[in-house]
Order: sequence, then structure tokens, then C-alpha cells
Amino acid sequence: MKFLHTSDWHLGRQFHNVSLLEDQRVVLEQIIDYLKQQPVDALIIAGDIYDRSVPPTVAIELMNQFINLVCGELQIPIILIPGNHDGAQRLGFGAEQLKQAGLHIIANFEDMLKPVVIETEQAGEVAFYGMPYNDPETVRHYYSEPASTHDDAHQLLCEKIRQQFKPQQRNVLISHCFVDGAIESDSERPLSIGGSDRVSHEHFVDFDYVALGHLHQPQKKGEEFIRYSGSPMKYSFSEQHQKKGMTLVELNRDGFVSATHIPLNAPHQMRIIEGELQQIIEQGKSDPHAHDYLLVRLMDKHAILDPMEKLRAVYPNVLHLEKPGMLIGVDQDMGKARLARGEFDMFKDFFLEAQQSDLTQEQEQAVKDVIAQLVRQDEP
Amino acid sequence: MKFLHTSDWHLGRQFHNVSLLEDQRVVLEQIIDYLKQQPVDALIIAGDIYDRSVPPTVAIELMNQFINLVCGELQIPIILIPGNHDGAQRLGFGAEQLKQAGLHIIANFEDMLKPVVIETEQAGEVAFYGMPYNDPETVRHYYSEPASTHDDAHQLLCEKIRQQFKPQQRNVLISHCFVDGAIESDSERPLSIGGSDRVSHEHFVDFDYVALGHLHQPQKKGEEFIRYSGSPMKYSFSEQHQKKGMTLVELNRDGFVSATHIPLNAPHQMRIIEGELQQIIEQGKSDPHAHDYLLVRLMDKHAILDPMEKLRAVYPNVLHLEKPGMLIGVDQDMGKARLARGEFDMFKDFFLEAQQSDLTQEQEQAVKDVIAQLVRQDEP
Repeated sequence: MKFLHTSDWHLGRQFHNVSLLEDQRVVLEQIIDYLKQQPVDALIIAGDIYDRSVPPTVAIELMNQFINLVCGELQIPIILIPGNHDGAQRLGFGAEQLKQAGLHIIANFEDMLKPVVIETEQAGEVAFYGMPYNDPETVRHYYSEPASTHDDAHQLLCEKIRQQFKPQQRNVLISHCFVDGAIESDSERPLSIGGSDRVSHEHFVDFDYVALGHLHQPQKKGEEFIRYSGSPMKYSFSEQHQKKGMTLVELNRDGFVSATHIPLNAPHQMRIIEGELQQIIEQGKSDPHAHDYLLVRLMDKHAILDPMEKLRAVYPNVLHLEKPGMLIGVDQDMGKARLARGEFDMFKDFFLEAQQSDLTQEQEQAVKDVIAQLVRQDEP
Repeated sequence: MKFLHTSDWHLGRQFHNVSLLEDQRVVLEQIIDYLKQQPVDALIIAGDIYDRSVPPTVAIELMNQFINLVCGELQIPIILIPGNHDGAQRLGFGAEQLKQAGLHIIANFEDMLKPVVIETEQAGEVAFYGMPYNDPETVRHYYSEPASTHDDAHQLLCEKIRQQFKPQQRNVLISHCFVDGAIESDSERPLSIGGSDRVSHEHFVDFDYVALGHLHQPQKKGEEFIRYSGSPMKYSFSEQHQKKGMTLVELNRDGFVSATHIPLNAPHQMRIIEGELQQIIEQGKSDPHAHDYLLVRLMDKHAILDPMEKLRAVYPNVLHLEKPGMLIGVDQDMGKARLARGEFDMFKDFFLEAQQSDLTQEQEQAVKDVIAQLVRQDEP
């Protein structure tokens, strides 16, 4: 039997004040196209369906269209859990009714122990257990058993689930957590502060497959069958080199067979361009992906008037600009950037660019006087 | 066939900063008890299920428990529309899947034209058409037909629905609107400003029953079969004398048979008590409903120190206090209340109450001087 493992959709996310909804729509359409051509027995979403507990209505509508197509038209069951970005109660409304139509939202501990069982010829009965994201306090409170860390909580919850195992069933776990040693990206929101969010992969070894969510880079951890699918698209510049997509998992009666990365392509990629302004503008003129979401790192050593406007003429979606070439470092104590060139030289560059002429000797002297006066005032 | 018509639940509402959720829970339990003892063929909620478009999670959980019991255990279908307080897109998530389990959320115009058809021996096929609440702009935009008022919009939408009528079916309409001439309460939020929210009952006469929501007082308008169920509990002091509950509707093959008010009783009633402080406190000591939510109108003519604290010793849920006895009216121009007694007399009362002694002659003079000075300053 085959199922698709995805996670971390973050529908409704903004990136540098730009809505990613249309990119997300295209990516979801790619998932639907895949499912139409190569039907699977289930689709898994391992948490963070939405970017926040009260998602914008446009994100809810997009998700609604997706489930209408997948559960309705294609008749492929969806099994999902809330992640740390989702609101479990809000997401879980109508869960009891929705499961009758093939949408399985596992949003509480009772449902966690009632697996979604899918029977196929190749793998017999496969039980999908969803572990809704919860902090350790909630787990401790619910079970009245000690659990101070995410690792404790996972140990406890996995133990509860293992007690439900049936000899004739293969077992899949869906969880939203940070497996110790796995690789982070910039777009994940920490589950807790100070490292107590890490869980050992050892809790998971009795399952036939573990569909993980939370980390945005696709990766396996500890075993071939313990995997993050990663997010379906990039959510930070730090992910520029990550291969985004979903994971096609195959099981048979003996358990895990294979996991295959299926690529997905958002219309705008997120990437970083480094160089001097003129050189970047030149290359932009013939860049086929000029509409990507960009972080531009300008290496020029002199001041430039309105570089954003100049860049956006060729790269319309420059979302962030860094000018490391103009800084020699950041003075930690003062919280101020120190300039690689002196104030006077910077002003001279600026004047030349703004006025298309050099400072006269008198102007030079006047600027120097003003700077000297300001620097004196600034001293303690 | 019989169905229950309710509306305006406003789950999650606050009243003078007090959560009404536990009262709402009790009222919903009364509805469930009724349904257990006298099953009906459907339950209608004519809008304003929640008090706002993003309801608190506790309200969502309460609603979720209700549908699990009614659609799940009791197997009674629920048909509902969003009202002006609800967020239609948010409420409509999963609607396509939920209807398979007997929860019919009619949240858009396509679904409006696909009635929920319930067949019974007594009435044959009954088609329930839900008209989700929308402002005229949305209706105009969706149909590209003129509609500048709620009345225009209702005319248009009723016409669209009538085109779906089938000769063998009885027709029920569910709508959330303000029928012209009906009685308002203080707890309704106006649909629009300046009277353009009124719709004529004439649009509705071709239906066999019209289950209305929006107005909180149970009432019929124009015909016996055009009715507001009213809200299941009071939501303002202005509703203190309203009989709250739901409407049991009976139809047969010829159409409307009867509408019966079924009372519901919130644990805390909202009411107004008028009188002098001492008299109210005396009666409170033996009032079996001392826990009601109260507006107290103090008729005392003299100043009283901390009357709220004194009242709450016997009536713990005094939520609002008025002191008309101390005012002779409100100066419209100045926006200030004019005192029935002079400033000096009021201060004398206050001093006596606070200090348990009269002002000395010197104190009297000092107070009079201060008042005279302040009054002079206040003059234009």
C-alpha cells in the first residue's frame, strides 16, 4: 500500500508582509494533480496545516477546496494532526462527523488511541495513529503521570499507543515534534526554549513508519522509516537549497518498503543573491526566475541611493536587503552598526549619487564641521 | 412531521464582562433533554450560532459536544445558516463532508439552492432552504443583479429559491433578517444603519414555514407560519419579560399545521430591580433568585457610599447600577448629568456616610468655598 506523507503547510503564512497564499494554492494543485495520476491509499498531514490557530478565512477556504477535491471527488482519505501552529480545538470542530466522509482530524488524546485503519491487499490492515501536538504540561495533566519534557511526553504517549497494537496490523505514527539531532530551518517556531523540546527517535522504533512534522527540511532520523517530509515549499531564505516536496511511502505485510521524495515546485522560490548592485541588475535582466522572492546581499563598499527601487526594476520581489559591504561589523555594546567608511566619505558618495556632482570645497568643509559637531555631541 | 426552530444562540457571548457559557451549556442540555424525550425530524438554527466570527475555543467545544450528541447519538439532522454575528467561511469549513453525518451548514449561495430534503410519512418530502446571512452588496456582486437594500436582496434570493420548488415538496425557508414591523431587543446588532435592513414578509408567503433568526423576541410576522423563535435565553435587560425558548413546528402534506413555544430556562435570568437600597437589600435576603443577573435602579435621593458592594452582599450578580433618583435629567448640550440635589448637600450625605458624623461648621464653610470656586471656574 502507498500513502503520501506531507507536513507543515502553514496555509495563510505571510513572508516579509507578502501573502504566500497563491503559491500555496499552486503547490496544493500539484498535490492534487499527483493524486489524480497516481492514487494512494491515504494522505497524511503531520501538523501545521495553518500558520496560526486563528487562520485567515482565505486559508480556510483553500483548505476546504482541497478536502472537497481529495476526500470528495478523489475519495482519498486524509489523516491529519494539529501542529504547534494550529489550534487543536478550532481545527477539531466536527471531527466526529468529518471522519465519516474520510477526513480524519486527530485532535485529542481519545482519538489518538482510535487508529484510522486502512485495509489493502498488499499490506493487510494498516493502523494510522495520530499524536496531536501538545506541550508536556497538557500531557502530564491529562494522564496524571509525570512528564516534564517533550521527550517524557512522547515516551508516555508512544507507550499508550503501543498498548493498542494488534498483531495483524502494521502501525504508522503521525507526530509533530523535534527529533533530537535533526536539522532545523529558520521558519520553524521553537516548541520550547532551551533544548527541552527534543525527543529521542528510540520511542518510535516499534512503528512500521513514523510520519513526522515540525522541521521543514525533508530528512530521516535514526531509521529509514522515521522521517520528516519537510514543508511543501520554502518558508525562509535559509531553506534556499532544500529540496521541497512530499514523501511517498510504501508498506507491505512485513512493514516498511520504501520512502520516495516527490518534488513540489512553488512558483516563487526563496533565494539569496549576493554581489554588487550593477552586477546583480545586469544578471537580473536575463534571469528567467526574476520573480522569485529574494534576499539581496549588496557587497558594494560605497553608499547607494535607494538600492531597493533599482533592484526591484529587474527583481520585483526583493523582500529584504542586506548591505554587509558597507559595514565592518556590529558594535554589540552600542547596538549600532559601525561603518566601513567614514561618515564624510559616505556623505560624499551620497551627494554624488543624488546630485550628480562633487561637493565644492566650501561644501566639504561645512559637512566636515557638522559631522565633527555631531560626533562630539555623541560622546559620553 | 415535526421540527424544532431555534436561532440566535450567540455561544461565547459576554454580558457586562461575565461569560454566559455555563448558562448556554445548561440551555443546550435542556434542548438535548427535549430531543431525547420527544424526537423531531430536524433541528433548525436560523443564524448567530456564535456571538462573533472568531468565537472563543470554549464556545466551539460546546457546539461540538452538542452536534456530537444530536447528530451522532440522537441521529437528528441539524440544519443551520450563519447569521450576521457568524463568520460564514469559518463556520462553513468541512460543510460538504459534515452533511454526510447530518450536520447541514448552508453557508453559501450554491448550497442555498440545494435544499436538505427530509421525507416523512405525515408530510411527504419537505425541502429546507437555508439563506445564509449576507449584506446586499454581496448578493448584488454574486448575482450581478441590482440589489441595494436587504429587501431587494431577499426578493432576489427568494425568487432564486422559488425556482427550485418541486410540486411534491413542502418548502421551509431559514433566514436571518429583520422583517419590517417586528419587535427589536437591545441585544441585536443592527444589520445596517438607517432602516435599510428591513425586509417585507411578502417575499416569504409562498413557503410553508419560514424559520427566522436575528430578532431575540419570539414572534410571528404577517402570517402564522412566518416566525422568529427568538433567542434561547435573554441577552439584555430589555428582554426581562420575554418568554425564551424554541418553536416546535408541525407540517403535514398540506403545509403548516402549528407552531408551539417550548420554554427554555437559563439558570440566571436577566432582570431589573427598582427601589431604594435598604428595601432592595431586605427583599434580596429572601429572594430565591438572588443569583440572577441584575440591573439595579436605585431610587434613593441621597448619596450612598459603595452601593455595589452592599447590593452584592445579597445579590451577587448585580452587573449594572443606575441611580436615577439622584438625577433630574441629563443636560443634552453639556453632556453632563444635573444633580437633583445641590453639590453641597450631596457632599454632606457622602461625608456622613463615610465618616459617620456631620460636618462641623468650619468644614461646612470650607466645602462651600471650594464648591463656589469650582463652579466659578466652570462657567464660560
